[in-house]
Amino acid sequence: MEPNIKNIAVLTSGGDAPGMNACIRAVVRTGVYYGKNMFGVIQGYQGLINNNIEAMNARSVSNIIHLGGTILKTARCLKFKEDAGMELAYQNLKAKGIDGLVVIGGDGTFTGAKRFAEKYDIKVIGVPGTIDNDLYGSDFTLGYDTAINTVIEAIDKIRDTADSHDRLFFIEVMGRDSGCIALRSAIASGAEAVLLPERETSLKELITKLKEGASTKKSSSIVIVSEGNKYGGAYDIAHAVKRKFKHYDTKVTILGHLQRGGSPSGFDRILGSRLGFAATKALIKGETLKMAGLHGNEIKLTNLADALNKNNYKLEDDLLEMTHVLSI
Amino acid sequence: MEPNIKNIAVLTSGGDAPGMNACIRAVVRTGVYYGKNMFGVIQGYQGLINNNIEAMNARSVSNIIHLGGTILKTARCLKFKEDAGMELAYQNLKAKGIDGLVVIGGDGTFTGAKRFAEKYDIKVIGVPGTIDNDLYGSDFTLGYDTAINTVIEAIDKIRDTADSHDRLFFIEVMGRDSGCIALRSAIASGAEAVLLPERETSLKELITKLKEGASTKKSSSIVIVSEGNKYGGAYDIAHAVKRKFKHYDTKVTILGHLQRGGSPSGFDRILGSRLGFAATKALIKGETLKMAGLHGNEIKLTNLADALNKNNYKLEDDLLEMTHVLSI
Amino acid sequence: MEPNIKNIAVLTSGGDAPGMNACIRAVVRTGVYYGKNMFGVIQGYQGLINNNIEAMNARSVSNIIHLGGTILKTARCLKFKEDAGMELAYQNLKAKGIDGLVVIGGDGTFTGAKRFAEKYDIKVIGVPGTIDNDLYGSDFTLGYDTAINTVIEAIDKIRDTADSHDRLFFIEVMGRDSGCIALRSAIASGAEAVLLPERETSLKELITKLKEGASTKKSSSIVIVSEGNKYGGAYDIAHAVKRKFKHYDTKVTILGHLQRGGSPSGFDRILGSRLGFAATKALIKGETLKMAGLHGNEIKLTNLADALNKNNYKLEDDLLEMTHVLSI
Amino acid sequence: MEPNIKNIAVLTSGGDAPGMNACIRAVVRTGVYYGKNMFGVIQGYQGLINNNIEAMNARSVSNIIHLGGTILKTARCLKFKEDAGMELAYQNLKAKGIDGLVVIGGDGTFTGAKRFAEKYDIKVIGVPGTIDNDLYGSDFTLGYDTAINTVIEAIDKIRDTADSHDRLFFIEVMGRDSGCIALRSAIASGAEAVLLPERETSLKELITKLKEGASTKKSSSIVIVSEGNKYGGAYDIAHAVKRKFKHYDTKVTILGHLQRGGSPSGFDRILGSRLGFAATKALIKGETLKMAGLHGNEIKLTNLADALNKNNYKLEDDLLEMTHVLSI
Repeated sequence: MEPNIKNIAVLTSGGDAPGMNACIRAVVRTGVYYGKNMFGVIQGYQGLINNNIEAMNARSVSNIIHLGGTILKTARCLKFKEDAGMELAYQNLKAKGIDGLVVIGGDGTFTGAKRFAEKYDIKVIGVPGTIDNDLYGSDFTLGYDTAINTVIEAIDKIRDTADSHDRLFFIEVMGRDSGCIALRSAIASGAEAVLLPERETSLKELITKLKEGASTKKSSSIVIVSEGNKYGGAYDIAHAVKRKFKHYDTKVTILGHLQRGGSPSGFDRILGSRLGFAATKALIKGETLKMAGLHGNEIKLTNLADALNKNNYKLEDDLLEMTHVLSI
Repeated sequence: MEPNIKNIAVLTSGGDAPGMNACIRAVVRTGVYYGKNMFGVIQGYQGLINNNIEAMNARSVSNIIHLGGTILKTARCLKFKEDAGMELAYQNLKAKGIDGLVVIGGDGTFTGAKRFAEKYDIKVIGVPGTIDNDLYGSDFTLGYDTAINTVIEAIDKIRDTADSHDRLFFIEVMGRDSGCIALRSAIASGAEAVLLPERETSLKELITKLKEGASTKKSSSIVIVSEGNKYGGAYDIAHAVKRKFKHYDTKVTILGHLQRGGSPSGFDRILGSRLGFAATKALIKGETLKMAGLHGNEIKLTNLADALNKNNYKLEDDLLEMTHVLSI
Repeated sequence: MEPNIKNIAVLTSGGDAPGMNACIRAVVRTGVYYGKNMFGVIQGYQGLINNNIEAMNARSVSNIIHLGGTILKTARCLKFKEDAGMELAYQNLKAKGIDGLVVIGGDGTFTGAKRFAEKYDIKVIGVPGTIDNDLYGSDFTLGYDTAINTVIEAIDKIRDTADSHDRLFFIEVMGRDSGCIALRSAIASGAEAVLLPERETSLKELITKLKEGASTKKSSSIVIVSEGNKYGGAYDIAHAVKRKFKHYDTKVTILGHLQRGGSPSGFDRILGSRLGFAATKALIKGETLKMAGLHGNEIKLTNLADALNKNNYKLEDDLLEMTHVLSI
Repeated sequence: MEPNIKNIAVLTSGGDAPGMNACIRAVVRTGVYYGKNMFGVIQGYQGLINNNIEAMNARSVSNIIHLGGTILKTARCLKFKEDAGMELAYQNLKAKGIDGLVVIGGDGTFTGAKRFAEKYDIKVIGVPGTIDNDLYGSDFTLGYDTAINTVIEAIDKIRDTADSHDRLFFIEVMGRDSGCIALRSAIASGAEAVLLPERETSLKELITKLKEGASTKKSSSIVIVSEGNKYGGAYDIAHAVKRKFKHYDTKVTILGHLQRGGSPSGFDRILGSRLGFAATKALIKGETLKMAGLHGNEIKLTNLADALNKNNYKLEDDLLEMTHVLSI
């Protein structure tokens, strides 16, 4: 009944996301439990090409579930986009008899994975590992929950010092193409306003909103700025506001890469464990070109093609509406 | 179209749960946004009986979203179980013209709420606020996510010191009737074993499992003990193990009430906000005897009667299976 | 024996610092314990001028020891620098019979306090409350320990993602005139380099250091940048490095005001408690124009004039030497 | 000028303490910087006897400064107390040419170190690494600051849920012979009472104090219980109180070994770095039978014999007095 998958490799690719280690652990131990030989690829697709592939056992993944980052490291890899690079990767896997691959990453990772699995006789299952939460086919991507916690802990600290009503704090969060982190952070931190790549907000609108708040709240205002909004970064928008409204005291925080790190939350450790467990079992059952994802409280498979289809993904409109109601 | 709900009160009851303040904030601001008069009841049902009911506005809930506990306080209240107490509560609400009530709490809270709403002409919507996660009708209850994070942060610290293979750490977590906290904590912390109220584990089984681990892992073992398992608390089980296996060095941690506190996680702040928003909108639409709950990434209403039906609720069997595979 | 101090007020001024609430609590309760009438001034010197002065008792400071920020709020106040403003402040205090004042803040605060106490018959004791640690007369200022913890927690998260040897992370920390935060953060986070206002570092030196590290470490480098170094902020230095060394991937984090907030560390809560306790006892004993400070494990008084003398303060040279040895 | 120390080993012994890794890193890198060959001993004195001694270089200690526990592990070792065991340890060191040893640990560790250094021609410098803070010769021991932070974070969470005035929370903290952790935790958490091994408190006194608090505070009370107080653990005292005062609802938390773990605070990372740096430089200068310790803001050496003399060590009486004043 079970197809003849015998040797499975796992890799992480793209930006680091908390929970990747929990997922690697689950992949390796699930494979071992079901009698497979397990391998870890160092530095993602680059490691496939460089033949940086190591055997792993249940002990290789001891005491890693709580660690941020990825023990397998990640890297950008342009060569894997070329036929020659992909061929080399294939040869290296074949030489070790590897017939199944779990790839943990975001849309760039899956684009490569899809091409690879379509071209060669190696089965591939994806796990959505990215703090950006911008993939279709999983309610949440791995690392997103931790990133939100990281952002709100930072904003909580800033709010401690917010006591003067002419002071504006601009907090820049990740999300060049997607406002997912900004939107949920804004709700969870009770921010007064949020600037998203998906919605244009004029300076005038923003100032109107902040003035309304100031008139009733008598306290500082916190504005979450997603990297990819139309004004540029938080510094640019702070300068623009300052130019027009001189009496405001504007303060800027750029969270940057600290959003990618940190010990994963319980949610991400459990999600990573479940996704890794499910992805490995799917491979063993002979599945390929799928992504394991969270749907409600269940793990289900989605076609990689659907996961990558940008038309399938949408910002949560109900949450956007809620930010307006709750920041009155 | 909208029924004539004009005055809405909100209360918290039962054990504290992180995220209750985010929910109170959402209830009050949503009500204000839609033009209702809002009230907060101090100390749950006791406050209804004592007429401890205060008007609230948008500013009453400023700067509380990040706080643990509940600004409205909670209390046990035996009198509300009696007809006389319930009548008094009703008279106090009526005197203020309150025709809608949001109750945030667990199953005890909802039992009272159901009786009350069936008996009197006051509409009631429930919000599942309890760290126990033992209600039907919401994938997660408010506070559960934060409690899991609290537990695993504690276990991470214990694991730092776990370096001798004859040392057993027993960590007692909350859950007299339900192993929900124990089960997810065990997965998220990579515990070697877990004792649940729902599953009987013999001492012999436990020791066999720990010995297997020790033989391959050469490190300490962590055992999560849910309060309500058959052996009693963590001290009892530690003593029982010690009596039979003298060379083990057993160490005990009882987390206790710290699991109920702490700044709510992003997940719980957003969940609390969404549930409060939805519960208030449901009241305004004329709904009653319902509970707002999370289903996947959506908020839906469930009948209170169904939420309270213990037969509807089940421990997650797939997660239980996974604990065995991943702790090899 | 005790002079006739009867009514004592406390205020916080300048930038927020974690631990200020612990100090306010200690001042108020110590005063109450010794039978004095206690007052809190809202918004620092501005509150003195505006007569924003409230009676406080032991309960006014319940449940605040763990909170960041200051319940008394702070504000910049230019008017207090003028004779008219100071006179108004004095009249307001006198009208309430206040004859003792505890001021919690940094050097700007103490400059005002010194002038005031020299001019009027109100005794003043200072408490060094600033995250900058740039005052003479206390081994550590209140809030500095928490700020260091905040910075290193941020850097720990960044380090999780640091796995490519051509990647440079620049972290900007507070300290326009003083490298205290930068220096200790660099040691505590194991940073590869640190740029301070007190020491000029050329770009060439920096790059040489980073290259040496890269050649042996094969991992990313973290550079702490104090606001006031000669190149400007972290963005400026990142651009300058990028211009000269194109193959480096530079990433920037600006921590900003989150360094001023957060729940105070145990160290700062105890320090705040001790300083408030000592300052109030000093006032009661008739002292004035002094600052309470930590010397080893004891609290001692220093003349305000000495605390403000910039020549007395020095960056810790032994720590600077140590950063070079330990970052090899 | 420099004596002929060429090969230096470092070990950790006794209970884990956060900051040990920062200290190991400092010892190794300082030794390397000054041209010495460096070694790490696995599992303390047991590792000396078992010849579990490995060469280390600057890279061996990369990315460990932020980790709890100790990468060198610790162990109890009865054999090192016997002449035969000590002789074996000596032979193993001699075989590798090791002529200097840094031992990081508490009083048990130093007792062994002293005997060893007196008997053999190997120079030994101690570093006070224990969360108990019960050694003479250092204002603070390594790990103590982190342990206090861990305890107060736990109590902060418990306080979130403390809203009923007949509820007593008993928190048991480490310290069988010393109330150092209990005392400072009590101040930093604003606890209502503290039970120490060094001071006898009768049940009657305790209840009187709690009743006074309840009469004015109308909120729950938190009692810190040091392991070694005369009533036994927190459970015992909670039962005793409950027996006499039935209407109190008593809740117990036993923090246990989580106090030994966790990522070290900035204070402990800097302290560990400074102590390791100083201890290694002392060895290189030919010092022996000394302990490096923090005095104010400086590192100084103390004779091991003095550090071990129990008569030298005292609980901080001024802090004890302060707990009474500030908990009114």
